[in-house]
Amino acid sequence: MDAAILNVGTELLMGEIVNTNAAYLSQQMKKFGINVYYQIVVGDNHCRLQSVLEILFKKVDIILLTGGLGPTKDDMTKEAVASVFKRELKQNHEAVNQMEKIMKRYGRSIKEITKNNYRQTFFPEGSTILKNDMGSAPGFILQTDQENKTVICLPGPPHEMKAMFNAHLNDYFSAMTDVCIHSKVLRLTGIGESAVETELIDLIENQKDPTIATYAKPGDVAIRVATKQKDKESAETVLQPTINEIKKRLGRFVYSEDERELNEMVINLLRDKELKVSTVESCTGGLLASNFIDVPGASDVFGEGFITYSNEAKEKRIHVDVEILKKHGAVSVQTAEEMAVGLYKETGSDVCISVTGIAGPEGGTEEKPVGLVYAAFLIDGTIEIETYHIRGDRQRIRTYTVNNIMKKLYQILKKVD
Amino acid sequence: MDAAILNVGTELLMGEIVNTNAAYLSQQMKKFGINVYYQIVVGDNHCRLQSVLEILFKKVDIILLTGGLGPTKDDMTKEAVASVFKRELKQNHEAVNQMEKIMKRYGRSIKEITKNNYRQTFFPEGSTILKNDMGSAPGFILQTDQENKTVICLPGPPHEMKAMFNAHLNDYFSAMTDVCIHSKVLRLTGIGESAVETELIDLIENQKDPTIATYAKPGDVAIRVATKQKDKESAETVLQPTINEIKKRLGRFVYSEDERELNEMVINLLRDKELKVSTVESCTGGLLASNFIDVPGASDVFGEGFITYSNEAKEKRIHVDVEILKKHGAVSVQTAEEMAVGLYKETGSDVCISVTGIAGPEGGTEEKPVGLVYAAFLIDGTIEIETYHIRGDRQRIRTYTVNNIMKKLYQILKKVD
Repeated sequence: MDAAILNVGTELLMGEIVNTNAAYLSQQMKKFGINVYYQIVVGDNHCRLQSVLEILFKKVDIILLTGGLGPTKDDMTKEAVASVFKRELKQNHEAVNQMEKIMKRYGRSIKEITKNNYRQTFFPEGSTILKNDMGSAPGFILQTDQENKTVICLPGPPHEMKAMFNAHLNDYFSAMTDVCIHSKVLRLTGIGESAVETELIDLIENQKDPTIATYAKPGDVAIRVATKQKDKESAETVLQPTINEIKKRLGRFVYSEDERELNEMVINLLRDKELKVSTVESCTGGLLASNFIDVPGASDVFGEGFITYSNEAKEKRIHVDVEILKKHGAVSVQTAEEMAVGLYKETGSDVCISVTGIAGPEGGTEEKPVGLVYAAFLIDGTIEIETYHIRGDRQRIRTYTVNNIMKKLYQILKKVD
Repeated sequence: MDAAILNVGTELLMGEIVNTNAAYLSQQMKKFGINVYYQIVVGDNHCRLQSVLEILFKKVDIILLTGGLGPTKDDMTKEAVASVFKRELKQNHEAVNQMEKIMKRYGRSIKEITKNNYRQTFFPEGSTILKNDMGSAPGFILQTDQENKTVICLPGPPHEMKAMFNAHLNDYFSAMTDVCIHSKVLRLTGIGESAVETELIDLIENQKDPTIATYAKPGDVAIRVATKQKDKESAETVLQPTINEIKKRLGRFVYSEDERELNEMVINLLRDKELKVSTVESCTGGLLASNFIDVPGASDVFGEGFITYSNEAKEKRIHVDVEILKKHGAVSVQTAEEMAVGLYKETGSDVCISVTGIAGPEGGTEEKPVGLVYAAFLIDGTIEIETYHIRGDRQRIRTYTVNNIMKKLYQILKKVD
């Protein structure tokens, strides 16, 4: 079964917002063994929307559509779908009740409901309506009578779309397919994508079942090994020999054998080893601590952190010697070291991490350019200092710094008894 | 002039990464008055890539393509473009020199360069090659001889793509177009998109030049008013009357009249009023401080912040009374208040903000559900406490908390003399 994702919205085409819905829906389809061949964005334009719908119907079985279900004039998904399917738009009374209930919940009287709002209660005839638990615009599923083509229309706001998918479409797709794509992902760090492929070239060139794909994300390379099977056991039988072979060749670079991200792996390691971590941040300004706290249950290992953006804060909170700041500057090996030591004195945490750098765009010099970052790791009386040179803008420098620190911390923790 | 954006990469179709390149390129095209009608993602599949290229060539003048220029077997953009354009792939000697120089910089000898790497030095005949300052794969521009169709191929990694765009394509597009889209954006807070449209319905329905579009982002609504003009002055003449009319109707909700985000507006207000801000965070764990420090020059107003995730840290760092924690819990109005007061005692900052809440997925109760967040704002001896109920997952709750706090802070600061 093949699918396409069609996201409708001029704000996407204008680059006002990044399209996260496409990635989410692709991930869901993968779970059900449905191939996604296209992700397409069109604006709030009836003609182009209709023409893309017509092209996609020739190419795939299922179209997952998001956006354009809202109350305003430029929401025209239902009109376009109705005309491609040659159905009338009919008002649905349950949707009317539902909407009036929601409006009341927001403290509005029925008189205050605008005519626009009522647009959300009309659907192409024959649709199965999908309730929206997070917002006011319901979704719907519509099937052609003959060619067995399906369009599923979901709201544009990501949290509404996800909630609707979870409430209604997991069961829908489970019932539809009896094989699923089962896959395993190996995440590697310390090796580039090109070198990974060179190591695996014979496996990649001769792949059939399972398939092997490599891809690079900031800071790491992932290898996905996948097969379409009825159940987990038969998938295991197909996947495991290839996984073993890859690990034989590249095992020393592997940090994760499932979908888990580095921050989750690090939190787990800290928890297993009963270690507490604290952070003191300058240029990352809370982003590092936030990366720990992103992981549910982080409180087991993360108690507190400091953001010492100014020199005064570095002195006052974690006792960085003013002479060191004067002599070497806030962005220096020495300051990073003092920050980590001071953090340990204040918190007594088992793992103390400090970071200081130049995130730009201003503040760089010939000797200390924008993108120069120092991080210190103080664990068990031993300090390790890392120097990073990160290219890009302020946001990228700060994000990559955090990724690099998590990678290094992972490597250190793997060695700790 | 019409364009389409085509992003190539199975990792995008699999939902492994979110497609930020499309949004970036759309923004760039908007600057040059070029309409983007489609954003399309296809996988690393020669057939589908070629067929989409052929369809797009009938529909638009310019195709901006990203991805598939790398060294590995599944990078097949150049092959597909060459076959659609009926050109041969030829090796470019300058690209060979360039690549060998880059590899040396990474400490590799020429012998170590894999055969795969050399794939990056072949281009369709007649291409103008675009140097890659951030990575190893060059891009290129290729034009048809007759129909005046252009394809511009850029690398997939966002920082490489952006750097290449800035280095080569700004001038390219400036020279190409003599009219640009000029637009003004009003950002509003405290009103919904549907209500905005109801207020402006006559303007929206009768729009011609300038055009008016509304769109909602987390925490705010934006209204874009746009016109195609040769220069800024004539654009101003067309835009200003409409802007004035909108402001007459909705001015009290407007917080920004340019592209600037709320955090930048807040930093500017703080700077103008010579106020220093400090933060103490529990559930957001550094994300709030990071939102301040995202803005270049934040050091003028942000000196330090605390992350007091554990109760011990709340007691030790900012003197929250243990009795208050026991009686009311860490997530309570009282604790939020104590945190802000304690933060003031420690830092003396003019603006002290505290935040404590339940980000989930665990830790919620009937009385205090996941998504309940309190924030306290202590300014000039006056404390204001906000209560938020945020739906969604851990990430969303934390992000929306930060957005809500910035919005509230903006409103408070507007009133401060």
